[in-house]
Amino acid sequence: MRSIDRNGLTACHHGIRPHIHCTPILTARSLNSEIGAEIYFKCENFQRAGSFKIRGASHAILCLTPEQVSNGVVTHSSGNFAQALALAARSAGVKACIVMPANASQVKLAATAAYGAEIIVCESTIEDRQLQANRIVEERGATFIHPSNDLDVILGQSTAAVELFEVHPDLDVLLVPVGGGGLIAGCSLAAVYFSDHCQTIGAEPLAVDDAWRSLASGNIETNKSTETIADGLRTGLGDRNFPIIQKNVERIIRVSEQAIIDAMQLIWQRMKIVIEPSSAVAYAALEIEKQKFRGKKIGVILSGGNVDLANLPY
Amino acid sequence: MRSIDRNGLTACHHGIRPHIHCTPILTARSLNSEIGAEIYFKCENFQRAGSFKIRGASHAILCLTPEQVSNGVVTHSSGNFAQALALAARSAGVKACIVMPANASQVKLAATAAYGAEIIVCESTIEDRQLQANRIVEERGATFIHPSNDLDVILGQSTAAVELFEVHPDLDVLLVPVGGGGLIAGCSLAAVYFSDHCQTIGAEPLAVDDAWRSLASGNIETNKSTETIADGLRTGLGDRNFPIIQKNVERIIRVSEQAIIDAMQLIWQRMKIVIEPSSAVAYAALEIEKQKFRGKKIGVILSGGNVDLANLPY
Repeated sequence: MRSIDRNGLTACHHGIRPHIHCTPILTARSLNSEIGAEIYFKCENFQRAGSFKIRGASHAILCLTPEQVSNGVVTHSSGNFAQALALAARSAGVKACIVMPANASQVKLAATAAYGAEIIVCESTIEDRQLQANRIVEERGATFIHPSNDLDVILGQSTAAVELFEVHPDLDVLLVPVGGGGLIAGCSLAAVYFSDHCQTIGAEPLAVDDAWRSLASGNIETNKSTETIADGLRTGLGDRNFPIIQKNVERIIRVSEQAIIDAMQLIWQRMKIVIEPSSAVAYAALEIEKQKFRGKKIGVILSGGNVDLANLPY
Repeated sequence: MRSIDRNGLTACHHGIRPHIHCTPILTARSLNSEIGAEIYFKCENFQRAGSFKIRGASHAILCLTPEQVSNGVVTHSSGNFAQALALAARSAGVKACIVMPANASQVKLAATAAYGAEIIVCESTIEDRQLQANRIVEERGATFIHPSNDLDVILGQSTAAVELFEVHPDLDVLLVPVGGGGLIAGCSLAAVYFSDHCQTIGAEPLAVDDAWRSLASGNIETNKSTETIADGLRTGLGDRNFPIIQKNVERIIRVSEQAIIDAMQLIWQRMKIVIEPSSAVAYAALEIEKQKFRGKKIGVILSGGNVDLANLPY
């Protein structure tokens, strides 16, 4: 197992660097004056396969033993991790099998297939996803890689923030969207080991506020609904990332669906970049508590840009 | 008058540089393999006020005499030049009066007003636009600055391509959208003075192909209709830019409305950037004649990103 410290994060970043983009950090004068702060957007929407997920996927692939490499990998995902693992596996010459629910978007199914992965279509329940993935593990000896609850994946995701702190070690706050918890767990570790004093704050849709409730109760809570436009944030935390989040994340800000849509539209309009709703959640959190962020130096992780243009909320 | 040669373009660039962004040049692996070429996108959608127009506007303002500065400037524009001149004038402490048609988009009216310009609303005919602008010139002694048929403006627009050639002097082809003709005239001059051997090719909607017909007939032709989604390209050429275009532009490729929409959607999806329909016209031209561009090193000017998100074609 990899070490969860500054050396571990550095080694991970060094390893995956040839396989990922060092994405740009953008600023926007008008959004700075809107919030009254200095905001640095880490643009993972420009990342390979359209989201930060390639970081964790690449690292997980690099950590495989030779035997695991020859038996292939399997995951379940309806979204960005499916494409990312397919791409990372193809680059490394590893067979990837992706279990995707029948109701996944055709765009994402097509993209995952285009990266050369084998796709197993399952029912759209968590139980059937896991069942099908387990079957592949048993039948083929394939290695299961969880999209967010895997330490190698968490280390990989940390590098988005490591790159931001390399340029801006003096950030006061880092805002990160919370879904399965892999990204925020990794980014919070980066804040601990690579920033001067930065606090990590999560941003979560009110409609799926399991992480907010988990921090309040001290146990991993689940969502009754998945009804949010932020399709990347519908999944829940896991036992690998929750302790890291408990220890290193200051708090979580919850935002309404309308605030997510407004933030997404504002960023498209002002910054001329395409981000997905999950990315907009972090900026929406800034808007809602802007009096608390006034005068601060703030990092915002824009997690991805995979959006269905035929189905926009405006 | 400024000199129309390498020194003139260099002096112009030097002068306006503090007032504009040196916009990024982006590439996209999947679009390179789609066309079979090496494509460099000059992203003026990230420019101040959302389009290349601030380049020409800033240069025209810098070229004013002290007397002209004190009497202010006037232009007519329904679109990007209105915002650009308003911003450039404000930055220089010059009064700007913008004649805008009553049917201009509310977003653009609001943005122009927010930059501190006085707005005169006119009827949506070319005659009334010019009449109202002439009235301001007579009443106030203001200097009229044409959005595209003005040598100072043309020199300013050239700098978009100058910046591209500074990084890639060996481009084979530069593709530029054609509307009023200021951008392509300027860019074609940049190709002459700053590239090794680059050909400038225009891209124009079939529905408003006045520039294509003008090159064919040798006279400035007009459009009967303005029915194109590429709202920045509805205007016609002028007597200052047409001779430059005749001399330096190789040819013009015409594209259908559907090709413009498809190109715009493809760039949003693959590059995760917001571009306006007028910008997509240049890539659409590449798609249509891709067999001719195979293996070449190509520059594409993405002219702007001011799009009404409430009124998308998809």
